[in-house]
Amino acid sequence: MIMDYLERNYLPENFYGIPALIDYCNLGEMCTFKKGDPIILPGQYLKKLLLIIDGKVKVSRLSSSGREHFQYFAEKNAIINELFPSEDSPLQIIATRNTQTCMFTSGQLLQIISNDNTIALEILKGLSQKSNYFEERLVERTYDTATTRICHLIRNLVLQVGVYEDGRCLIDIPLPQNYISQITGLHFITVCNVIKKLKNEKILGKDGKKLIVYDVEKLNKYLMLYEE
Amino acid sequence: MIMDYLERNYLPENFYGIPALIDYCNLGEMCTFKKGDPIILPGQYLKKLLLIIDGKVKVSRLSSSGREHFQYFAEKNAIINELFPSEDSPLQIIATRNTQTCMFTSGQLLQIISNDNTIALEILKGLSQKSNYFEERLVERTYDTATTRICHLIRNLVLQVGVYEDGRCLIDIPLPQNYISQITGLHFITVCNVIKKLKNEKILGKDGKKLIVYDVEKLNKYLMLYEE
Repeated sequence: MIMDYLERNYLPENFYGIPALIDYCNLGEMCTFKKGDPIILPGQYLKKLLLIIDGKVKVSRLSSSGREHFQYFAEKNAIINELFPSEDSPLQIIATRNTQTCMFTSGQLLQIISNDNTIALEILKGLSQKSNYFEERLVERTYDTATTRICHLIRNLVLQVGVYEDGRCLIDIPLPQNYISQITGLHFITVCNVIKKLKNEKILGKDGKKLIVYDVEKLNKYLMLYEE
Repeated sequence: MIMDYLERNYLPENFYGIPALIDYCNLGEMCTFKKGDPIILPGQYLKKLLLIIDGKVKVSRLSSSGREHFQYFAEKNAIINELFPSEDSPLQIIATRNTQTCMFTSGQLLQIISNDNTIALEILKGLSQKSNYFEERLVERTYDTATTRICHLIRNLVLQVGVYEDGRCLIDIPLPQNYISQITGLHFITVCNVIKKLKNEKILGKDGKKLIVYDVEKLNKYLMLYEE
């Protein structure tokens, strides 16, 4: 019972996917995109539910001043709900690999749900996880300092994927600093400065592509320090 | 065709509601709350879909440092999806008036959808509008200055509910400065300073409880100025 909740996503990728939808591709419209192709550009209305069958896409939003704000990556089995876009939709979806998608209209989705109504719950679950992720980021961007945002991200990755070895914790996920910048909404230079500070304080390090947390205790204490 | 998209919500209230759900209240659990009663506290898992039948509730999230971040108000016909809460759910829902709700489990929702599958689309529509709202706020909080955030809010209200009278635009919505602070995520003092500046520049004023925009052109120009 206690485990019966949605796992949090700490990175804006691998959101809850719906493999069962693949059985209904004959109802939808199959679309193929080459790496770099736009799937939607800002101002376009898709009015479809997208299922990623294969490949990878990047979902972004434009700010009012036209800056691109990265939202998330979607890969195999992921859904992107653009059935009900808002007016002047500032959404942009670009294929970052050769990508195959199946697009469903709301009518087609109704047909699918008539056949298997648990799909409706699965979609709801996927969208809940995504909303939770973005609402959390909103709270964080409102109240947390740059250092806190980055330390939280690292602490969450320690909890989720960290592997302890010789008293250090390894995080074996590619996490370049420009990705940290996109996730936290911080300027690239700010990310560099915080990471440098954490390295100087012997909290963080790198082993090839792996991130090393030398001192998880110190990372946690650091967070407490900056939260007050 | 061009109107066939979801209207944007400029205030975190009156999100797309689902009056049709009221016909299924016999399936769910009716719950009554007095003004001030908590409906969920942080750390609790509801695992229900809430329908507000009457009254008003305030939905907030706690930040990692325990600060309350206001999310939105929900009134009659509004739904709150807490079927799939995230682990360590930081959500808080408080009745701000005497409130009657009906709570549905995922099993009960499946029953409802079996009977009327358009309800699934309606729920999806409501959640899409809400996600759009919060994702927009996230982009805004990442890139926009305090003045830009407040000017945007006012410009959007001008577009949505503004009534022109003698060359001025009246916004007849109660919008106290602490509400602007909650909506924009800005400190109350910052909101006061920006509003004071806009008043000094003869852009904004008050007529009783109504907000007056004396010069919409100047407000728009102001936005362009601050966006560059």
